Amino acid sequence: MKVAIAGGTGKEGFGLALRFLMAGHNVTIGSRDAAKAAASVAEAKELLGDDVAVDGAENAEAVVDAPVVVVTVPFAGQAVIYAAIRDHLIDGAIVVDATSPLQAAVGGKAWEVLRPWQGSAAEFAATLVPENARVVGAFHTVAAASLRAIDHPVEEDVLVVGDDAEAKSTVGELVEGIPGMRWVDGGPLAMARITEGLTPLLISINRRYKTKESGFRIVGRETWGAG
Amino acid sequence: MKVAIAGGTGKEGFGLALRFLMAGHNVTIGSRDAAKAAASVAEAKELLGDDVAVDGAENAEAVVDAPVVVVTVPFAGQAVIYAAIRDHLIDGAIVVDATSPLQAAVGGKAWEVLRPWQGSAAEFAATLVPENARVVGAFHTVAAASLRAIDHPVEEDVLVVGDDAEAKSTVGELVEGIPGMRWVDGGPLAMARITEGLTPLLISINRRYKTKESGFRIVGRETWGAG
Repeated sequence: MKVAIAGGTGKEGFGLALRFLMAGHNVTIGSRDAAKAAASVAEAKELLGDDVAVDGAENAEAVVDAPVVVVTVPFAGQAVIYAAIRDHLIDGAIVVDATSPLQAAVGGKAWEVLRPWQGSAAEFAATLVPENARVVGAFHTVAAASLRAIDHPVEEDVLVVGDDAEAKSTVGELVEGIPGMRWVDGGPLAMARITEGLTPLLISINRRYKTKESGFRIVGRETWGAG
Repeated sequence: MKVAIAGGTGKEGFGLALRFLMAGHNVTIGSRDAAKAAASVAEAKELLGDDVAVDGAENAEAVVDAPVVVVTVPFAGQAVIYAAIRDHLIDGAIVVDATSPLQAAVGGKAWEVLRPWQGSAAEFAATLVPENARVVGAFHTVAAASLRAIDHPVEEDVLVVGDDAEAKSTVGELVEGIPGMRWVDGGPLAMARITEGLTPLLISINRRYKTKESGFRIVGRETWGAG
């Protein structure tokens, strides 16, 4: 699968890039700055070998031929990055928004949550892309540190929300390609109002227990996935 | 420990009553209706044996000598039950609020969330009890069906939030007395704004996957508890 990661030089985006590359996907790391993207490409090759299918580009260029675009930026940069990519998305692109509306965006704490006018950052994102783009919320609860620890499986589940079942299943395939991970269909895009709040909850737990890797498993069923 | 459960004849409250009794605690099942409370007491004895330390009473009477009071009612009944018990709580009582502000309270869906003026149902509860009562939010994510399956451990974690560390630890002890369960300190009471949203998320997941027992485990650390 071809995946572009807008904001892919950040910790979360780069961690996902590594994991998608390890699963054999073709990854383009996007950044505001082409030089930064190139540096991350070099780092990925150093970690995974020269033969992984990775390249880098400015965000707008990174998305031009990607059926799946993952957007991993702090809330304060969300509108700016969507403005940069919106006219370059392919028809029917799956746009995976991982934004959590932390109050840190306006000088508050990272364990406090802002309520966007649309209800969630993912629903806000849906207003910033062309109508036929399919916005999915995912990866809010995945610790960057766990993604980066590439010698270990990621023992976490990913809550995937969205209004397009096929788009959710495609994101689910990306998730299941990462050793240890499973995906759980969390419902329509509006459920991002809940799942985005899990990031600050984990930040709060990480602070209290002096860890960087808290996350969630969903229990109560042997298998999850497309349901 | 002596525990009163206001709204203890409901599925969640009764499930907790059973589990606390099995752990050797002294439980008073509270209800609006003393006859209903008596029926639940009889059912508990039938399930667990005549020698368990259970009794029943109207809610106001149930709490009069309980250092820990658990309140498990639908959001629509929350203010009413606090009005009934507030003048009967002991000094410094630990009040465990398990309310989720589901939009079902006003005719909406159980997977939609209302935002109480105070931020969360637990913070609303804190305005409804005497100032020296210590409100803790907990048990939002625990499936009643899993509590009721008394021959099985409850393979779930409980997020406990509150502003009083000792109160959280006390609730944590109650949690850890239930086989399979662990407690995780989720931070101050305001974090209930997040943890209360986990109930509708699980309701949504239960619907989609046709189960009644979805829940959470927190991963990333071997042990949780008081941290």
